[in-house]
Amino acid sequence: MSLPAEFHEIAKRVNNWGRWGTDDEIGTLNLITDEVVREAAATVRTGRRIPLALPLQQDGVQTGMIPGRVNPLHAMVQINQEIFGPGTVACSDDAVTMGLQAATHWDALTHVSHSGMIYNGRPADTVTAHAGAEFSGIDKPRHIVSRGVLLDVARARGADRLAGDHAVTPEDLEAAEEFAGIRVRSGDIVLVRTGQIQLYLAGDKHAYAYPSPGLSVRAPEWFHARDVAAVANDTLTFEMFPPEIEGLWLPVHALDLVEMGMLQGQNWNLEELSTACGQESRYTFLLSAMPEPFVGGTGTPVAPVAIL
Amino acid sequence: MSLPAEFHEIAKRVNNWGRWGTDDEIGTLNLITDEVVREAAATVRTGRRIPLALPLQQDGVQTGMIPGRVNPLHAMVQINQEIFGPGTVACSDDAVTMGLQAATHWDALTHVSHSGMIYNGRPADTVTAHAGAEFSGIDKPRHIVSRGVLLDVARARGADRLAGDHAVTPEDLEAAEEFAGIRVRSGDIVLVRTGQIQLYLAGDKHAYAYPSPGLSVRAPEWFHARDVAAVANDTLTFEMFPPEIEGLWLPVHALDLVEMGMLQGQNWNLEELSTACGQESRYTFLLSAMPEPFVGGTGTPVAPVAIL
Amino acid sequence: MSLPAEFHEIAKRVNNWGRWGTDDEIGTLNLITDEVVREAAATVRTGRRIPLALPLQQDGVQTGMIPGRVNPLHAMVQINQEIFGPGTVACSDDAVTMGLQAATHWDALTHVSHSGMIYNGRPADTVTAHAGAEFSGIDKPRHIVSRGVLLDVARARGADRLAGDHAVTPEDLEAAEEFAGIRVRSGDIVLVRTGQIQLYLAGDKHAYAYPSPGLSVRAPEWFHARDVAAVANDTLTFEMFPPEIEGLWLPVHALDLVEMGMLQGQNWNLEELSTACGQESRYTFLLSAMPEPFVGGTGTPVAPVAIL
Amino acid sequence: MSLPAEFHEIAKRVNNWGRWGTDDEIGTLNLITDEVVREAAATVRTGRRIPLALPLQQDGVQTGMIPGRVNPLHAMVQINQEIFGPGTVACSDDAVTMGLQAATHWDALTHVSHSGMIYNGRPADTVTAHAGAEFSGIDKPRHIVSRGVLLDVARARGADRLAGDHAVTPEDLEAAEEFAGIRVRSGDIVLVRTGQIQLYLAGDKHAYAYPSPGLSVRAPEWFHARDVAAVANDTLTFEMFPPEIEGLWLPVHALDLVEMGMLQGQNWNLEELSTACGQESRYTFLLSAMPEPFVGGTGTPVAPVAIL
Repeated sequence: MSLPAEFHEIAKRVNNWGRWGTDDEIGTLNLITDEVVREAAATVRTGRRIPLALPLQQDGVQTGMIPGRVNPLHAMVQINQEIFGPGTVACSDDAVTMGLQAATHWDALTHVSHSGMIYNGRPADTVTAHAGAEFSGIDKPRHIVSRGVLLDVARARGADRLAGDHAVTPEDLEAAEEFAGIRVRSGDIVLVRTGQIQLYLAGDKHAYAYPSPGLSVRAPEWFHARDVAAVANDTLTFEMFPPEIEGLWLPVHALDLVEMGMLQGQNWNLEELSTACGQESRYTFLLSAMPEPFVGGTGTPVAPVAIL
Repeated sequence: MSLPAEFHEIAKRVNNWGRWGTDDEIGTLNLITDEVVREAAATVRTGRRIPLALPLQQDGVQTGMIPGRVNPLHAMVQINQEIFGPGTVACSDDAVTMGLQAATHWDALTHVSHSGMIYNGRPADTVTAHAGAEFSGIDKPRHIVSRGVLLDVARARGADRLAGDHAVTPEDLEAAEEFAGIRVRSGDIVLVRTGQIQLYLAGDKHAYAYPSPGLSVRAPEWFHARDVAAVANDTLTFEMFPPEIEGLWLPVHALDLVEMGMLQGQNWNLEELSTACGQESRYTFLLSAMPEPFVGGTGTPVAPVAIL
Repeated sequence: MSLPAEFHEIAKRVNNWGRWGTDDEIGTLNLITDEVVREAAATVRTGRRIPLALPLQQDGVQTGMIPGRVNPLHAMVQINQEIFGPGTVACSDDAVTMGLQAATHWDALTHVSHSGMIYNGRPADTVTAHAGAEFSGIDKPRHIVSRGVLLDVARARGADRLAGDHAVTPEDLEAAEEFAGIRVRSGDIVLVRTGQIQLYLAGDKHAYAYPSPGLSVRAPEWFHARDVAAVANDTLTFEMFPPEIEGLWLPVHALDLVEMGMLQGQNWNLEELSTACGQESRYTFLLSAMPEPFVGGTGTPVAPVAIL
Repeated sequence: MSLPAEFHEIAKRVNNWGRWGTDDEIGTLNLITDEVVREAAATVRTGRRIPLALPLQQDGVQTGMIPGRVNPLHAMVQINQEIFGPGTVACSDDAVTMGLQAATHWDALTHVSHSGMIYNGRPADTVTAHAGAEFSGIDKPRHIVSRGVLLDVARARGADRLAGDHAVTPEDLEAAEEFAGIRVRSGDIVLVRTGQIQLYLAGDKHAYAYPSPGLSVRAPEWFHARDVAAVANDTLTFEMFPPEIEGLWLPVHALDLVEMGMLQGQNWNLEELSTACGQESRYTFLLSAMPEPFVGGTGTPVAPVAIL
């Protein structure tokens, strides 16, 4: 069994291998130039800041469906310990165990492979237990700061939240652009709001996980045409799940990460941002979403902040 | 045994308990107003971005000296796994175990207590194994974005790096202000460069740990006078270690975190930033240093970025 | 609120504080003398060995109901890594994160406290985040090897498995003795079979957890009268759950661990042992159930083996 | 580069592939028959028990030399938590992260591979991040109980501890047999004492690790001739380290685990056992050394006990 011809045709159209040189490991993040960042900073008007990460806790979004992707286990290793003797200043320390893709996160470009390959035509077996991702690990993008754009697909369609079987198409993205009165441009980080995360926030993590609206297999071509730097949304699966085309699992992951070399973000809480953008009637802002630089990591928790 | 009178006198002078209400859990971060952030964004000129986090890896800065504070253990739980069947898109997933104060990090206000108290006069025993820090955990500051100021104490003194027994005094901080041609103001996040981290970068983590230059017990009063929002530096211990006053361990931690309610950052790599600020002859920038929102956490890894 | 008078009366009757000296940390394990072990070894007739531990895996018995008690997360840190160069012998290494009470385990005597006390009248606050259990940690029993006795309460009652609301009483235990044709004596480790673990083995971990048969609040007196060294069973909760007496949670834990100083084992798979004992018509054997010596641990995974 | 001819010649002589069928996953543990265990139980005379595991603690034997093989990190997740309300019985729970080969442990047969193969001629790539060891994982031996034999090579040579460059040869093993007045036979678990662990016990874990006495590349043939079930010793590296033959790393691991299919144990504390055997003038006993059944594990902590 292999991926269908249809997938390979789209793959050819969005492929960025070699575009930034054969040594490149960060893909479309190359589109975030100093100029893009300068202009992004210039979008700041009120100074209002909206955090987009979910709290990191054991009662997180993971349901156990994905083996090894564990919610954070937070444990104290010192509590008010007077390590230098009685009556001295006392210390509390803690440690955590968690899946790097468990919570609000970025997928590294190496999070998926297909046909034995990762981004930029490297062999998938360069990911090892010893070193993690030798190429394109999450430690390779040194900074992820750019103009952020909220494409509020749910609100643009007059809905609080999209239905579980809704695949977000290029037409949806353009309707959201129109709704926002903006146009996505090269180097932007696009945040696609479906409203699905409301289910998790309301306490039903199983409903949040499945079925889930998400990006259509047709969306990557649109992101490619606009030269988007990265895309994140408010779902567990990023793309529609169960999949749009029966038997074709995770095509958007493969197109974004492997073919385009474009980072994806999942489980981003866009609710407060949606409200704020609505209030201020503007949908662009400075976005800082720095990866924790896990050497060889295929993902990272991230605490993004939109600065309006 | 208890803390000396000298400590308690300084404590009184820098104490902020009640200043932002009895319910407050974030202390001096209250000083970062929308206006401060607006002005911080306006400092961006070139769009150049400098990351300040050390790579997260097992060969990190921890030497084993601090019980429980373990360097990151990164492990793969899936490598190119075709979870949906042969020939499908393959996934790689990873997990990590690490001390929250192990790498480039923020201390939460609850990281230390003294005399049975934490910030804002709450009892220290509100930190529990069950819930971590009930108050002032690292999940409470929702955003840490402000104007960053580099006080390059080493360069201001004409040194690459301060000696191991150098306590950074208010006079040093003012000399660094003068060197930079700026003045620290309310809501700033101050980055104090000692150059000490060069020892770690050169491969000697023991020399990096000890002896270490760091902030003098006299520094908190200066931060308090200037109404600084947070302070970070490029050492393991933050303050001079072994301590300036024999037998008085971690006084700066206690003054900053407990009395002032001011977050501290440690193990920040300020080398590239120092070079960049020198090149551009300016020492202020937009700084984003978002905590990962570990619920009840007494610290967090952070991947700060300076945007020039 | 405090524990009812009824509880305190039983507590007085089973209390062993001081019985083995004020310094004692292992309680009824003192009853396992060399002579007991000699006689236990003499029970071996066929040499047949029956393991009693459940496999350690992420799909373990924990449902997430108990905060922090996580199923094992097993991850590879090296896979066939030629650490000494190409063509050399290759190594595979792995690491695990797990709750010490998550799988087939022993509770240490310090796993519970009541009224601020642990076994032998020590204050409960001797358990700290820094050191774990200073007294009576799971590292303190140096060996747990004795005569094992299977009290097959389910089979003695002609059932495959007890109902979810069945509290195992002294009468049940004596009926099981009679069924087995043996008498429990000083220093024995008693394995009480309810059959409840069949639910987990059949794939329903929620049904396994709750409701669950288990030991009655009246059982500890019987164990005390017989001078049993330790007791284990095939349930998640050890004692009947929800509790026998409304509002009185975990009384058996408190009586066994705190008052008697008697170790408890949970999630022991007694199915194969039940079959073997039935086949051989004998219910005593040599039992080795060594704790992993986690310093300060309040529990430990255990891989017990019955040698028939 | 590949392994030298010399290695391959020994490999041929000790190879057990197919000996217990092509489906076999446990190798020489097949030699532990019920009869062997019956006779092992019959060696028990005094009932004295000697534990052989080192305490599990963060200050364990690992020095950081082996990537990913971390000492145990023990952390409390509940301390005297009244989970059912104020005044109820309070619970303490803990969790651990550790390398499976970090402390006193068994190597699973899959811990090493050579020339792309593991025990019984299976391909090495059956070890995956997803499932760990599909074949011959540490969950496959259901019980490890047999006659234990202490070959006290150090004492037989009149030494407290062997020199760091001492390779334990067949002649050494036979001298230790003679010293003990016994003969190793089929199904025995052989404990080879070098005394090296005294260095760790005295606080010098670096000296313990390296240089280290250990088994000679000639030893596996002797174990094969005697049909030993498993071998453990009191060193970090099991075999002499640095290696006996320059450039030939871990040959004993490859011969024992891959060719013979014989489990190895490391970091076993044989000091107290040596004293006890000397006192009682006998060197055989019942040994229980049950692996924790980590599914797919390539190793396991073990708490062995010798019953004399």
